[in-house]
Amino acid sequence: MSGDGRERSSERIARDIETLSGADYTLSTDAIRRYAYTSVYRNTLDYFTRALQELGFEVNEDPVGTLIARNRPSGEPAFGVGSHCDSNRNGGRYDGTMGVVTALEVCRLSAELGLDLPLQLISFLEEEGSGFGQMLLGSRIMAQRVTEEELKESFTALDDGRSFWDHALEAGYEPGRWRESIHVLDGLTGWIEMHIEQARVLQDTGNRIGVVTAIAGYIHADVVVEGRADHAGATPMDFRLDPGLVLAECVIELERLARAAGKGTVGTVGEIEVHPSLINAIPERIRFSLDIRGVDEDAFRGVARDIAAFAEEAARRRAMTAHYRERQTLSATPLDERIVGALETAATVTGEPFMLMPSGAAHDTMCVADHVPSAMVFVPCRDGISHSPLEDADPEDAALAAEIILAAIRSLQP
Amino acid sequence: MSGDGRERSSERIARDIETLSGADYTLSTDAIRRYAYTSVYRNTLDYFTRALQELGFEVNEDPVGTLIARNRPSGEPAFGVGSHCDSNRNGGRYDGTMGVVTALEVCRLSAELGLDLPLQLISFLEEEGSGFGQMLLGSRIMAQRVTEEELKESFTALDDGRSFWDHALEAGYEPGRWRESIHVLDGLTGWIEMHIEQARVLQDTGNRIGVVTAIAGYIHADVVVEGRADHAGATPMDFRLDPGLVLAECVIELERLARAAGKGTVGTVGEIEVHPSLINAIPERIRFSLDIRGVDEDAFRGVARDIAAFAEEAARRRAMTAHYRERQTLSATPLDERIVGALETAATVTGEPFMLMPSGAAHDTMCVADHVPSAMVFVPCRDGISHSPLEDADPEDAALAAEIILAAIRSLQP
Repeated sequence: MSGDGRERSSERIARDIETLSGADYTLSTDAIRRYAYTSVYRNTLDYFTRALQELGFEVNEDPVGTLIARNRPSGEPAFGVGSHCDSNRNGGRYDGTMGVVTALEVCRLSAELGLDLPLQLISFLEEEGSGFGQMLLGSRIMAQRVTEEELKESFTALDDGRSFWDHALEAGYEPGRWRESIHVLDGLTGWIEMHIEQARVLQDTGNRIGVVTAIAGYIHADVVVEGRADHAGATPMDFRLDPGLVLAECVIELERLARAAGKGTVGTVGEIEVHPSLINAIPERIRFSLDIRGVDEDAFRGVARDIAAFAEEAARRRAMTAHYRERQTLSATPLDERIVGALETAATVTGEPFMLMPSGAAHDTMCVADHVPSAMVFVPCRDGISHSPLEDADPEDAALAAEIILAAIRSLQP
Repeated sequence: MSGDGRERSSERIARDIETLSGADYTLSTDAIRRYAYTSVYRNTLDYFTRALQELGFEVNEDPVGTLIARNRPSGEPAFGVGSHCDSNRNGGRYDGTMGVVTALEVCRLSAELGLDLPLQLISFLEEEGSGFGQMLLGSRIMAQRVTEEELKESFTALDDGRSFWDHALEAGYEPGRWRESIHVLDGLTGWIEMHIEQARVLQDTGNRIGVVTAIAGYIHADVVVEGRADHAGATPMDFRLDPGLVLAECVIELERLARAAGKGTVGTVGEIEVHPSLINAIPERIRFSLDIRGVDEDAFRGVARDIAAFAEEAARRRAMTAHYRERQTLSATPLDERIVGALETAATVTGEPFMLMPSGAAHDTMCVADHVPSAMVFVPCRDGISHSPLEDADPEDAALAAEIILAAIRSLQP
């Protein structure tokens, strides 16, 4: 594509983002706040609907509100592009929305360049969980990774505590037909989601594009170390059972294990809760969280196993106990080699700096990839800041991504 | 003293403790809760007043409510014994109160055995800070370690926010004469306070008596480590500024430094506060507290200096920053060698197991020792538990302490 073409894309993307940051599209004036079944979310879907209809796409929504737009009759082969257009409660302009906007730009370019590629745009409902506290909700419903009980009972609105089901009905949807959401994928020959990176690897390595090779799986767990709450002044060092030392050894060991595991494996202690938390008392008990991720299933699960064993042994050495308890786990999602290869080729052709990379964050694509060959493209976001009004990304990078995605889809046509 | 005598003492001490645990002497039915200017505190002072008057002591209170009882005219030489009889809000029967009860028993024994030693019993006001959030308040007022502004303005009741001054007036005291409290010490030739140990050294070493050689000084401080809050999944290990690792290194180093310093030096991280405290976010900032104590001024202050420098260097090595800020510091209080020696001799004579030891906790004796040669005696408390309704100590140990204190005072008479 000519530089002119990329500049035009960039302007259109910037305009879309600017529009969707206006008062009609966010509940907050200080941040983007947009979630399922609010008027501002409805306005956002309407915005995309109009733009896609102008391109000749037929636009529908699935039984709960995931938007699907096609330029081929329903059921016929088409290549999928899209992301989500809901936001964090205190969110920025780019997370999700720039992915849908870029997908729209791919559709525009296909028409503008006379390619008329068979395309389907999807904007998944409620990726951020801002409405009902459930991440990836629309794509999980589509992939049948929820239960009817959850939709009717356990998934309730953060705003008023009423069920997802009731809210969906009230918004005019048919949650009773949620199992039909899987048809969102009917006819899809492939899927590419663009998203901001939400970390600083692209920025810090000077790359404009990340071609994602896999989405990390994760284990969320807690370790509870039981010591003994003694007087901080009156208890000599030799008489202590201080769980803080086990915590400390585990934090250092987790870093060592994650580095040793390699393959992009990461491990984080994000929460530390000390009981009783008094300056003059040796803690009785400390709980700390573990977030361990990676694209290599054996590697990240090995780190979790090793840190659990290490914690127990470190506690035992100091005559305490430590218990590891898993909260949640999700397997890694390898992405489709053929689509990744097509994106890599298309990126190379542009001459712009790009890299292959894993995604450490979860994305709707995890729910698509089980059913349809899938890939993702990342663009940088400033300083890795995301889920914040300070979120910033460059429409020129998104325009470059649109160009690369278009070229890849084109090369993958039969 | 005969075994019979010690048994009689033990019974009297047990009876006193039992009485002072009754409904008239505590605001709570689940714990001992007794603090300045409450009716139950008044009842407690009255109990001691009656018992001491029966022994022929003249009983007075200083301008704020510290109780003084003498069996010699005011100003004439006498040896001081006592402690405090207020409690923690969720306190036990023994912290403080058993010290006053044991001092009373010393007075009883002196009369009963026909020794008629010159004695002065003191029960200091508000040691625990349950009324006004200020530890050692009565003895600090006596030692002029407060300001009038504090008494009038800053020291306010936890219950109603009104000033210490107003509460003292309302209870019939004369806070305007607080500077005269120093006369509590007039004529005192020495001072011995008995207290439960509040740790488990005596229990775990099988000793019934601890002769305290010094009261630890302390430094209370905070370290704040500033990192960067990145996405726990999307941020590779090499791109992180995780303050948790600096915390971990400091916790381990503090233990090493305290052990290396020796001389009873101890160091504790009792509070850890993580921001933002999310399982899937690398912490942006961690604050942790330091409680560093010891009887050797150079040793414990050295540990504080070294850990502050270590934290800054550990943060710097990882491209972060750490700041050390002192909250409060108090010098160590060496106790009087002659009185300590007399207690040691008296303890040896009993044939019961005892040890010389420092006090890691603060006590009213810190405020006395600047003015009068002072010492302390510890008795075990079960499992080191204190400041809890589960607090437990043995009246037989207190009876042994009374016998030792009496013998020491006798040996110190001119």
